[in-house]
Amino acid sequence: MKTAHSKVTIHMVSSLDGYIAKKNNDVSWLQSSDHFEKGITLSDQQIEAFIKKIDCYVMGSKTYEMALELGWPYGNTPVIVITNRNLQTEKENIRFYSGNLEDLVNKKLKPKFENIWMVGGAMLTKAFINFKLANEIIVSIMPILLGGGTLFFDQVGIEQQLHLKDVKAYKDGMVELCYEILKD
Amino acid sequence: MKTAHSKVTIHMVSSLDGYIAKKNNDVSWLQSSDHFEKGITLSDQQIEAFIKKIDCYVMGSKTYEMALELGWPYGNTPVIVITNRNLQTEKENIRFYSGNLEDLVNKKLKPKFENIWMVGGAMLTKAFINFKLANEIIVSIMPILLGGGTLFFDQVGIEQQLHLKDVKAYKDGMVELCYEILKD
Repeated sequence: MKTAHSKVTIHMVSSLDGYIAKKNNDVSWLQSSDHFEKGITLSDQQIEAFIKKIDCYVMGSKTYEMALELGWPYGNTPVIVITNRNLQTEKENIRFYSGNLEDLVNKKLKPKFENIWMVGGAMLTKAFINFKLANEIIVSIMPILLGGGTLFFDQVGIEQQLHLKDVKAYKDGMVELCYEILKD
Repeated sequence: MKTAHSKVTIHMVSSLDGYIAKKNNDVSWLQSSDHFEKGITLSDQQIEAFIKKIDCYVMGSKTYEMALELGWPYGNTPVIVITNRNLQTEKENIRFYSGNLEDLVNKKLKPKFENIWMVGGAMLTKAFINFKLANEIIVSIMPILLGGGTLFFDQVGIEQQLHLKDVKAYKDGMVELCYEILKD
């Protein structure tokens, strides 16, 4: 049982104006050509070690399909795709789920996994915040205004106090903000 | 003539989910009770010196009225309020303007002022970005999700590359991101 130590992190990459996807689904903006002198860079080993600690991903079906299209970045780590659609896969680490979200996170995932990442999209973000299912939010802000598209936080509907845990700025102009979601 | 050195900065304080105002106009969220150990604090002298450098403010009429209500923070610095409404004031440093925005900024303000701050709201932000009237964007992000309200960037409509110039995190959990708006 890992419930006591399990952490659920909402992570998303967004533009400064808060969009996570363009209307035409073009993703070239995720590669920044900016240069921020004071920024840090991570070595491949550091990135690998960081990703290795994530032992479960949760995502919506659009995020899932986008990930498949772009070249699956989640390896063999367990992935839960929240969907009411009848999706199929041959990959053994991928499960589709259409039931109660609180049951999934609190009864199925937290007892089994320590470091659960919810990686999009906007509808799931709203649900995770409203049902208080996440402990942390990490937003990676790219140095661009997209001007329109899919919002990361789309009228979440409730007010939620946060605690700033960390700020990192990278050489490519990306800023990573890490917040703890405070319990009421 | 100060045109060559004049800089126009868009500045706004927003929640992490991108709102600059709550539906009920409550502004208590602008005072953070968070504590970020690694954050910096500015002395009163530093703040005063910083504000002294701003020699002109531009704002929409809702921002103007909100500022009046909260206790005018702009002292005797020249303020231009963009509005089609018939507003009146006895303050000599306040001017109301309803004409062409490009003319205002390029022909009237830039020749006269060096450090012009556009401080809201969303409609003016959209106009300033679309008409390429600003050189910089500074966003001060408070550690809170408001869940709804008035968006800072509301479908700006065009894509705009930015250059990260600076990131500052404060003791109260506010993060200040400063970007240069790149010319095409």
